[in-house]
Order: sequence, then structure tokens, then C-alpha cells
Amino acid sequence: MGKVYAVGIGPGGAESLTGAARAALDAADCICGYTLYVELLRPLYPDKEVFSTGMTGEIERCRACLKRAQAGRTVALVCSGDAGVYGMASPVLELAEEYPGVEIVVVPGVTAAVSGAALLGAPLGHDFCVISLSDRLTDWNVIETRLRCAAEGDFSVCLYNPASRHRKDTLQRACDVLLERKSPETVCGIARNIGREGEQIRILTLKELRDAEADMFSTVFIGSSSTKRIGGRMVTPRGYKK
Amino acid sequence: MGKVYAVGIGPGGAESLTGAARAALDAADCICGYTLYVELLRPLYPDKEVFSTGMTGEIERCRACLKRAQAGRTVALVCSGDAGVYGMASPVLELAEEYPGVEIVVVPGVTAAVSGAALLGAPLGHDFCVISLSDRLTDWNVIETRLRCAAEGDFSVCLYNPASRHRKDTLQRACDVLLERKSPETVCGIARNIGREGEQIRILTLKELRDAEADMFSTVFIGSSSTKRIGGRMVTPRGYKK
Repeated sequence: MGKVYAVGIGPGGAESLTGAARAALDAADCICGYTLYVELLRPLYPDKEVFSTGMTGEIERCRACLKRAQAGRTVALVCSGDAGVYGMASPVLELAEEYPGVEIVVVPGVTAAVSGAALLGAPLGHDFCVISLSDRLTDWNVIETRLRCAAEGDFSVCLYNPASRHRKDTLQRACDVLLERKSPETVCGIARNIGREGEQIRILTLKELRDAEADMFSTVFIGSSSTKRIGGRMVTPRGYKK
Repeated sequence: MGKVYAVGIGPGGAESLTGAARAALDAADCICGYTLYVELLRPLYPDKEVFSTGMTGEIERCRACLKRAQAGRTVALVCSGDAGVYGMASPVLELAEEYPGVEIVVVPGVTAAVSGAALLGAPLGHDFCVISLSDRLTDWNVIETRLRCAAEGDFSVCLYNPASRHRKDTLQRACDVLLERKSPETVCGIARNIGREGEQIRILTLKELRDAEADMFSTVFIGSSSTKRIGGRMVTPRGYKK
């Protein structure tokens, strides 16, 4: 019986892979994933079989991997960032119930909250929340409640999917909810194309963030009340006294 | 003028390093960090200068790195997991103001929320909070408010520092706060010694977690209301329909 590795490949190409992710890809006879991410790995594995499906074909992609594994193959199902954070680990573990005997191994990777934070400085140096603004699979009411609770708890917040092709005002709506509790001067940051061509960061206030542009390649950070701007970086102190 | 890399080395040894972390360690003329983590790297760099300080000597450690960098050296300041999540990136960026000209580069790594989640399945497949239960640098009131907000928002929650040598009832107190809002049947997990010898996981209910033992080498996960136990794993669905 075969095996599916759900592999987080980090934000970019080879340099963001962990040794364990590399070993799982080495061990796999085929690699499956969204086209953009599979292409990042192609130079490392020019001769390996690759199959790919469109952006929203997640369930189809999981089933394709599970079917091959049931036929005895070892499949690497790759995800940008981490496999568990809004990644393919959940759906593949749920669907695996229908493919008895297939072993699932989740190989963790550097998720955008962590890689974007590193570019900006250390915005997640203390307690934080990660919230996706995508309402494709979640009611906006739930998202709004979570934003309100995150602000109420004075967490630093990392937002995934701040925009999509179809939704342009999502970030603005989210900022409006956060602004009910958080100061308009709260230090915020945007990291875009992390680990890829066109990588860039911007540090701004929450008031400015409300009217800023963040596309589907952006990850957004909102500080807690103790987050500071230090020499062009965004830093949330752990609380150490100097 | 020199440089300090704040490097997240992931949970374990060589296999949890990313390519970028490896490159930073290669480039450094010396490696600094808490003894346990530096020892994990020793086999990779047997000939490199290493210096180390005790567990709570964080500020002293940052200053030692910054001083060497100011003298023109390239220093790798290593952190278990990620450098930004309760790591050394924040204090070194804060202190760097006093050492003008020293460049700080944060190299992200796989933090325990992500590596522990992979071992357990996919508990962080949807929105989540990360909260440290250490009251060494944070008032317990703040921690309690954040726990309450996390429960109110029906987040999955990952707890760092669920216990220490001195505090034995911290996890119990945290569970009592969460139980005000979360069901006692909420699916929870404990990951211990992630990526190291003695690695183990346990899946249990929130009611059981309240009376469970979690030591300083444990990371604790509390599900949202949609988190399920599937074939011995803890899975929070992204919401995909099958």
C-alpha cells in the first residue's frame, strides 16, 4: 500500500524547503500540486512525474493522490508555505477515510505568517492570530467575529487571502472591524511575493492599510498595541527589559 | 560592518533546517544560542566557533552577537523553531538600535505550532491563535483575556510554554478559562519533543486535557468547534465539501 506526503514547501523555491521536505520529495515517485508551486520544484526534479490541477481543484487533487497511493505509489502532494495552515493536509486526511490502507504523512513547512514576518522584522514576536479573509468556504459573519475577538484580545494579527480576483474591498471591511478596537496608528505591514520574484514589503499604519492595495499574493500583518516601528522594521516585543 | 542572522532552525536537527537557514549558518563565522539548540547543530559545523548562554540570558546573548557583528563578524543567532515566534528576532531588532550599522537578517523556520500540528494531523487547518502561557514576561490577566477571546472567536488554539519548572497548574487554569466557552468534548492534542528523541503525541478531549500533564517540552493544541478526530489524527477542516 502506498503513501501520500502532504508537503509544505515554504514560500519560494529550493532554499525554502526543509531537509525533511526535500527527503519526502526525493522519496516520492510523483509530485502533485497547483501549477505555480510544482513549477518552482521542477528544476530540482526535472525527470520526476508531475501532475497538476487548477487552483480550486483541491478535492480532485487529493483524490488523484489517494488513488495513486492505493495503487502502491508514493505521492508528494505539495502546498505553498505549510501543508497544515489553509493547506492540503486537512482535506487529504478527511478524504483518506475512503481509501483505507493509504498512509498520510504531513511534512511541515514555513507558512506565510512566519516567512512574511521575517521579512518585515518580528511582528509576531508575541501572541497572535491567523485569519483568512477568503469567504469562499467561510461565512463573512464568522470572519468578522474572529477579527473582532482578535482586536479585543489585543493580538497581533496575520491575514491570509486579503483579496481575490473577485473581491476588492475585503481588506477594507476587515480593517473597519479592527478599527472598532485598535488604534488607527497601529503599526501594520504588507509582505508581497514572499521568497519569489518581485518580493516587497511595506510598513504603514492601520488607517493607511484600510485604503492600501493588497492583492492575492500579499500577506498582511496588524500589530498589537505594543508593536513598534524600529529602523524600517515592524517589531512586536516579547516583553524583555533591556 | 558585520551582520547578525537570527535563524529559526525548526524543531530538530539538520532535517528541520531550510535551505536558507543552512546558507546563513554556512556564511556565519560563529554560532550563538541556547546550549541545547547549538548542540543539535554541532555535528553539521564541528569546526565553527560556538558560544552559548543559559536559558534566560536572552538579552546578554543578543548583545554578545551585536558586539561581535559591530567588530565586523557575521554571527548566526539560532532559535528553536522560528526566530520570530517568541524567538530572538524581536529582542535583537530592539537592541540593534544601540549598535548602529549592524545589519540584521531574520531567517524564518518551522515553529512548534506548525511542526506539532503536522505530527497531530492538521489541527490548524483553519483560523487559529497562538498564545504563550508563560507569565515570566506577561501578566496572567493578559493571557487570560486572550484565552477568553480565542474561545469566543471559536479559533483553534496553540499553546506554547504550557508549563515550566516552577508552574505546574498553568495548563489547568488555561483550560478552565477555555471551558467557559468551549465544549468539554473539544478535540485537543499534545505534541512532545517534536523532531527530537522521545517524540510523542496524544489526542484527548478538552476535559481530559485539563487534568493532563504537559511539560516544558510540550506544545498543546485545542480545536475549534469543527475540529474532528479522524483515524487517530486531529483535523480542523478548511470547509471543503467532498
